Amino acid sequence: MTYEDILYEVDGPAAIITLNRPDKMNAYTARMGVEIAQAIKTANEDDSVRAIILTGAGKGFCGGADISAGAGAFDTSEGGAGAKNFGDRKDDAPEEGAGFVGALYNSKKPTIAAFNGAAVGVGITMALPTDIKIASAKAKFGFIFTRRGLSPEAASGWFLPQLVGLSQALRWVLTGRIFDAEEALKGGLISEITEPGTEVTRAKEIVAEIAENTAPVGTALARQMLWRFGSADHPFDLLKIDGPFALALGSSPDVREGVASFLEKRPPDFPGTVTKDMPKGYPWWE
Amino acid sequence: MTYEDILYEVDGPAAIITLNRPDKMNAYTARMGVEIAQAIKTANEDDSVRAIILTGAGKGFCGGADISAGAGAFDTSEGGAGAKNFGDRKDDAPEEGAGFVGALYNSKKPTIAAFNGAAVGVGITMALPTDIKIASAKAKFGFIFTRRGLSPEAASGWFLPQLVGLSQALRWVLTGRIFDAEEALKGGLISEITEPGTEVTRAKEIVAEIAENTAPVGTALARQMLWRFGSADHPFDLLKIDGPFALALGSSPDVREGVASFLEKRPPDFPGTVTKDMPKGYPWWE
Amino acid sequence: MTYEDILYEVDGPAAIITLNRPDKMNAYTARMGVEIAQAIKTANEDDSVRAIILTGAGKGFCGGADISAGAGAFDTSEGGAGAKNFGDRKDDAPEEGAGFVGALYNSKKPTIAAFNGAAVGVGITMALPTDIKIASAKAKFGFIFTRRGLSPEAASGWFLPQLVGLSQALRWVLTGRIFDAEEALKGGLISEITEPGTEVTRAKEIVAEIAENTAPVGTALARQMLWRFGSADHPFDLLKIDGPFALALGSSPDVREGVASFLEKRPPDFPGTVTKDMPKGYPWWE
Repeated sequence: MTYEDILYEVDGPAAIITLNRPDKMNAYTARMGVEIAQAIKTANEDDSVRAIILTGAGKGFCGGADISAGAGAFDTSEGGAGAKNFGDRKDDAPEEGAGFVGALYNSKKPTIAAFNGAAVGVGITMALPTDIKIASAKAKFGFIFTRRGLSPEAASGWFLPQLVGLSQALRWVLTGRIFDAEEALKGGLISEITEPGTEVTRAKEIVAEIAENTAPVGTALARQMLWRFGSADHPFDLLKIDGPFALALGSSPDVREGVASFLEKRPPDFPGTVTKDMPKGYPWWE
Repeated sequence: MTYEDILYEVDGPAAIITLNRPDKMNAYTARMGVEIAQAIKTANEDDSVRAIILTGAGKGFCGGADISAGAGAFDTSEGGAGAKNFGDRKDDAPEEGAGFVGALYNSKKPTIAAFNGAAVGVGITMALPTDIKIASAKAKFGFIFTRRGLSPEAASGWFLPQLVGLSQALRWVLTGRIFDAEEALKGGLISEITEPGTEVTRAKEIVAEIAENTAPVGTALARQMLWRFGSADHPFDLLKIDGPFALALGSSPDVREGVASFLEKRPPDFPGTVTKDMPKGYPWWE
Repeated sequence: MTYEDILYEVDGPAAIITLNRPDKMNAYTARMGVEIAQAIKTANEDDSVRAIILTGAGKGFCGGADISAGAGAFDTSEGGAGAKNFGDRKDDAPEEGAGFVGALYNSKKPTIAAFNGAAVGVGITMALPTDIKIASAKAKFGFIFTRRGLSPEAASGWFLPQLVGLSQALRWVLTGRIFDAEEALKGGLISEITEPGTEVTRAKEIVAEIAENTAPVGTALARQMLWRFGSADHPFDLLKIDGPFALALGSSPDVREGVASFLEKRPPDFPGTVTKDMPKGYPWWE
């Protein structure tokens, strides 16, 4: 696949996806959604990649859906691109089931959003399924759906309460107002603020911390357990899954290396890969 | 319905429900529960109302169930009013299924609690289903159930963890102690503290922000998505609902107005109403 | 049962479970898991106990699984004790279904973790199901699973997001790094920091607050409602449970005493016990 609306780059252990329509504040298009999903898939199949960074080119992260078509921008009956982005997910990436949302949610690699500037509408909801979120001090955010007559999309009605709590989610969504990086930090949407322009550098440091210390297979399992069981009704179903995985990993070369390197006080060198060594029973939800 | 234990007033885009037994710290009665449910229903059927404020007359918000009957206050076999408030919801508002809890939870309009003073026992749990909570610096709170020999009611065992997280919920409920507005703010129960006596004025400002900027239909959908999916097991069921709504709204006059007003840099004037224009498929849970 | 790896002591209303392998930083063993479950059961059957404190002997709380067997420590096929702790719960405490996790989760008594020092790996996940967590200023924490090649166990993939939110849980788990008491407080894992050496004293104060003010039966119900419904999909199922309990308790001697003592401005003396007076319908999940 040739990318038109994004850039995809691998830099050491980091895959970097850059939304790349800088003259339009990286306005979201249906094609961009397909390309993000494809890039995440590519990064998942590349064992050299330990984590994925999502950022934007130029001043903004993503200003929302492309509404250059005017008032009918979200009207699919008029071919409006906007609505297609939201509703018509089957066209986006049928193999993923739910387009870029599904691709991020199902990723075996940790994902980091590095907000270089404004992230508004689908520009922020697309990044909600990332694991870690950091932002430039110049970033702005807005769950502006109700200000355009829309309702929340891309399952943000689930992701946002899960990430920041229901109280904060309600306040941001019902007023639809724009807020800055400080408020995003205080409200739990992001975990740190960087000097403008250094957000990708900082994201790479986090990738390096993950790459140098953790096992790819254990990390992939950890990601899925937290996202898939963090809001389950009860803990007991998870015990049936995490117990057997602990047993399976317990006799794996990864755990031998993890314990040995710890006892020998040296950095670990985990042999397991997510393309070949996921334990039996993964993915348990299929 | 003639209200005896509350006041109901519409002031511009705000409907204001005032608990009105000020000589008894607005102690809760079964009748008050019925009246709250009815007032919320009335506000939902009035398209001029954009949001609902819940507050109390006099010094307190609501001191809890009326226990003037003494030790038997919660004993229905003795006709005690207290227990009836909690357990006997079928009598309260059968059409709503769950009395005032159901009425608040199902509201199409955003709801704001403006705590003017102490909110204790059912006096705080009744207000948990509101979307936004602000409080006078003089307000006090207490989940005092276990101090009276009771257990949490009005589904507060779900609402409180959803709103403030399970850790904070456990601490407040298991000790049952009274705490002040500062602690409520820090713990995430309220989002801001006002000068005593200005909480309703401030709540009206929030209503005005909603009324001037957001679409009634999109807002009603947003409320329901967050409350009904924020604790769902997985995001994918929501995608099946928010996608079609985005498509349906995309070709609606509301979204045309939302995009046009944004491009023209003027305030929006959304034509859609919640009494006539909820999109097909709403409510999806029926 | 004779305890080997823990100490069990009752001091007034507090049962104190002390992990007791201080020369090995209280490294976790399968036997320790069985003993914790048994001690919680014993405390639940003793009506003089109002709450349970979990702490560690010596400098640490629990440094994780005992890996003195070396690289094969988690390999059950080699008899490694480590994996047995995690995966083989049926051997641990079959009557509880899920070992110490189930025992803590199902406890009728409030539980307080008093972290006297480092709590790492299973050393922290074992304590996640406690209701209240406080820590010495010298305590350290780490969800280090992925650093040993493992994935999260003991249902921590459910407990941690429930307790601190999904965003914070992802950050701690995916990097696997060690963090101090300050970060644990800021991130919501603990609720207060004590002077080193005073954490059990402080925990006893919390037990005293519970014992002096709250009813055992109401407290047991409150615990179970919050843990079992805080992450339910919707509030309405809980209404069907909390309503009847409120009615049942409403005519109980406990509520009579709770209301009378409040009106008479004296401390309550609740007669109800969890061994004899749990209301009909409890436990509702069986």
